[in-house]
Amino acid sequence: MSPTPAQADCILQARWIAPVEGSAELLAHHALVIKEGRIADLLPADQVEGRWQAPEHHDLSSHLLIPGLVNAHTHSAMNLFRGLADDLPLAEWLEEHVWPAEGKWVSEEFVTDGARLAVAEMIRGGTTCFSDMYFYPDSIARAATEAGIRAAIFSPVLDFPTPMGQGPDDYLHVATRFIDDWRNHPLITPGFGPHSPYAVSDEPLARIRTLSDEMDVPVMIHLHETAGEVQPDANGERPLARLHRLGLLSPRLLAAHMVHLDEEEVRLTAQTGTHVAHCPESNLKLASGFCRVTTLREAGINVALGTDGAASNNDLDMIGEMRTAALLGKAVSGDAAALPAHEILAMATLNGARSLGLDQQTGSLVTGKNADIVAVDMAELEARPLYDPVAQLVYSCTRNQVSHVWVNGRCLMAGREMRTLNLERLLRVADNWQQQLAGFS
Amino acid sequence: MSPTPAQADCILQARWIAPVEGSAELLAHHALVIKEGRIADLLPADQVEGRWQAPEHHDLSSHLLIPGLVNAHTHSAMNLFRGLADDLPLAEWLEEHVWPAEGKWVSEEFVTDGARLAVAEMIRGGTTCFSDMYFYPDSIARAATEAGIRAAIFSPVLDFPTPMGQGPDDYLHVATRFIDDWRNHPLITPGFGPHSPYAVSDEPLARIRTLSDEMDVPVMIHLHETAGEVQPDANGERPLARLHRLGLLSPRLLAAHMVHLDEEEVRLTAQTGTHVAHCPESNLKLASGFCRVTTLREAGINVALGTDGAASNNDLDMIGEMRTAALLGKAVSGDAAALPAHEILAMATLNGARSLGLDQQTGSLVTGKNADIVAVDMAELEARPLYDPVAQLVYSCTRNQVSHVWVNGRCLMAGREMRTLNLERLLRVADNWQQQLAGFS
Repeated sequence: MSPTPAQADCILQARWIAPVEGSAELLAHHALVIKEGRIADLLPADQVEGRWQAPEHHDLSSHLLIPGLVNAHTHSAMNLFRGLADDLPLAEWLEEHVWPAEGKWVSEEFVTDGARLAVAEMIRGGTTCFSDMYFYPDSIARAATEAGIRAAIFSPVLDFPTPMGQGPDDYLHVATRFIDDWRNHPLITPGFGPHSPYAVSDEPLARIRTLSDEMDVPVMIHLHETAGEVQPDANGERPLARLHRLGLLSPRLLAAHMVHLDEEEVRLTAQTGTHVAHCPESNLKLASGFCRVTTLREAGINVALGTDGAASNNDLDMIGEMRTAALLGKAVSGDAAALPAHEILAMATLNGARSLGLDQQTGSLVTGKNADIVAVDMAELEARPLYDPVAQLVYSCTRNQVSHVWVNGRCLMAGREMRTLNLERLLRVADNWQQQLAGFS
Repeated sequence: MSPTPAQADCILQARWIAPVEGSAELLAHHALVIKEGRIADLLPADQVEGRWQAPEHHDLSSHLLIPGLVNAHTHSAMNLFRGLADDLPLAEWLEEHVWPAEGKWVSEEFVTDGARLAVAEMIRGGTTCFSDMYFYPDSIARAATEAGIRAAIFSPVLDFPTPMGQGPDDYLHVATRFIDDWRNHPLITPGFGPHSPYAVSDEPLARIRTLSDEMDVPVMIHLHETAGEVQPDANGERPLARLHRLGLLSPRLLAAHMVHLDEEEVRLTAQTGTHVAHCPESNLKLASGFCRVTTLREAGINVALGTDGAASNNDLDMIGEMRTAALLGKAVSGDAAALPAHEILAMATLNGARSLGLDQQTGSLVTGKNADIVAVDMAELEARPLYDPVAQLVYSCTRNQVSHVWVNGRCLMAGREMRTLNLERLLRVADNWQQQLAGFS
């Protein structure tokens, strides 16, 4: 007499599963069982019957299942600035184009619409969690939660006035209120987002250190992105040393870019447990330099992967970013064996989750974690023949091969049909902004 | 009384056209008229009526028309080795994996099937002309002509035995016969393909120089790809100097890679009119180094763009390659304004045609040239909003947005439907080889 099968919500039968964490790098012909938003089981496909039953089944016979991708650094609303000012150096791009455009256009409505477009693009590209720093964080959080995607959202802090505030007091007021409002939402991780050492002075940085400890939330900052910004200041201090003096370097801090670091700074980053969000395409496009990813990893630093905003990339495509990170990492280290495909997938999933303090919840396909899952269809001609599906994902696939996306067990896309978003309406929104902004550049 | 409209074969009405050559960088709301395989006219869309009539019309209202992409360096049959040995250095990859696999598997059937798969992938990705060097060149030429794609095919020459021959005499015999057989085919440009200075000795190189002059055909060689191969030989000569001594540096020569060049070698390459096929993704993946593209261009060298074979890339995606070339070129030169999108598009089209001696026939959308044309659909969410369609093509699009492809005025793909190839049959062919090769690696 066989026991009654246990009840689940959904069973995914997949040709391959790359769990990223656990004993096996790759499982063939396995099933993943979703129950109450979590991964309830991972077992050979022929053992499902009799053990599990569920009202929903997906037969993913030519697909690779991976943990949902974690975009560790972006500015989602900037999707509306995609391609507005290309082929320019960082300072000119920021000071003569992005900041003036932001001053003129950024509003709650702009951020809501831009974030919605970005969230749709990210879901379509297999991202299930993104880390964002931008104005009007509530609008970003609402865009994320209405679509059902996970997000860590860092409320911005700057020294100077913007449409969102006059100075640090205003920004910190908004940030603490934003964190209080959203800290218990199952999809949102709120935090503080001091823009950069060059845009935030000591006093607000020290307050952020105290507040983030008290409130137990993460902090995101742009750090050591360009050669120019790391020159020692009047006190002979480089930005990383300054942040260390202010107590900000810690496992609570996610530092975006980290392109220009000397050996002592690599050690300091490792010793303090500071995380790094590597953004290779943005660093290339703005000619910021080459992040020494293998050196950072050998020092023991947790390196996550991010696209940066669509104004400096110009997409939020984490599959493309994995490819760029893998290819570039080999050339920068002079070692074609560096950053193999499986490590790159971990960088784009589990390391990202860890960088946001979310590695107990997401980032790998192991029993008990939230069901944040992506299916990539390997049936296309460009993926054939196929010897290693993870290498294929990193080196040959495009975002268009992402077929299904689940977050917390909820299906956000199936067979490329969006389940929570109206694509036609989003395209009209994009057209409206294009008409408004096209007169400006 | 209005004159009778002239008769054409096909009229394309496009939202945008990037002709690459001619007075305007970008035309909006224009029509392109195809007649007898050539571009007969390019005019504002509202002036077509009364001037031209044709049995076939395409309304490409959300599309950018570009010249067909020219893949200046690949090994099409190696599509069957895609992903067979990733994350390895060039020497180990070549000597322990690729060459043994070639010794075991390469045959006319292998080359035919691999080339067919590659040709399908290239058409689907907007490539209308490719430059190939591989065994059994007749098989490649047949795969190209049966699909209707243009190709420059370089018959390989090596010092050592392979399934195709015992040594230089055999290879040169095949090459001269191959060139004679195909030189008058409207789609095929045959030439000599000495593999590299390290694989071909002086005597056959000297004969290739004489023969290519006599037969008036191009030559393709792998050159200065890695730091190891450019070390001076027993005579104190580096490979470029050796080729110059043998008289091979000329506008007839297309040198693939050219990663490691000193200033004198840059000048020599420019002075001799030697063309360069830049293959950024392959150079990154094999950690070969960083080609100094802006330096080569400033010296006056014609730089084309290639994917290299699918075993070291791992795709034949020229849109992705354009993005990598643009992003990487900025970082390598330290100038975010370097290699802007319009220059990159020229590199991937007209410069490629020029590198193969085909720039009077293809590579730009001007009246009189062959109608080698690609339409890219900008309607997708990832391309919105849109301020500059060429920047969007280079920085945000994927190969999947290629919707239509024409070569010599013949439609090879429309609305992503292949017109000359059976995709299902090709996928079965790929599966068969995968089953055979998967036991080997």
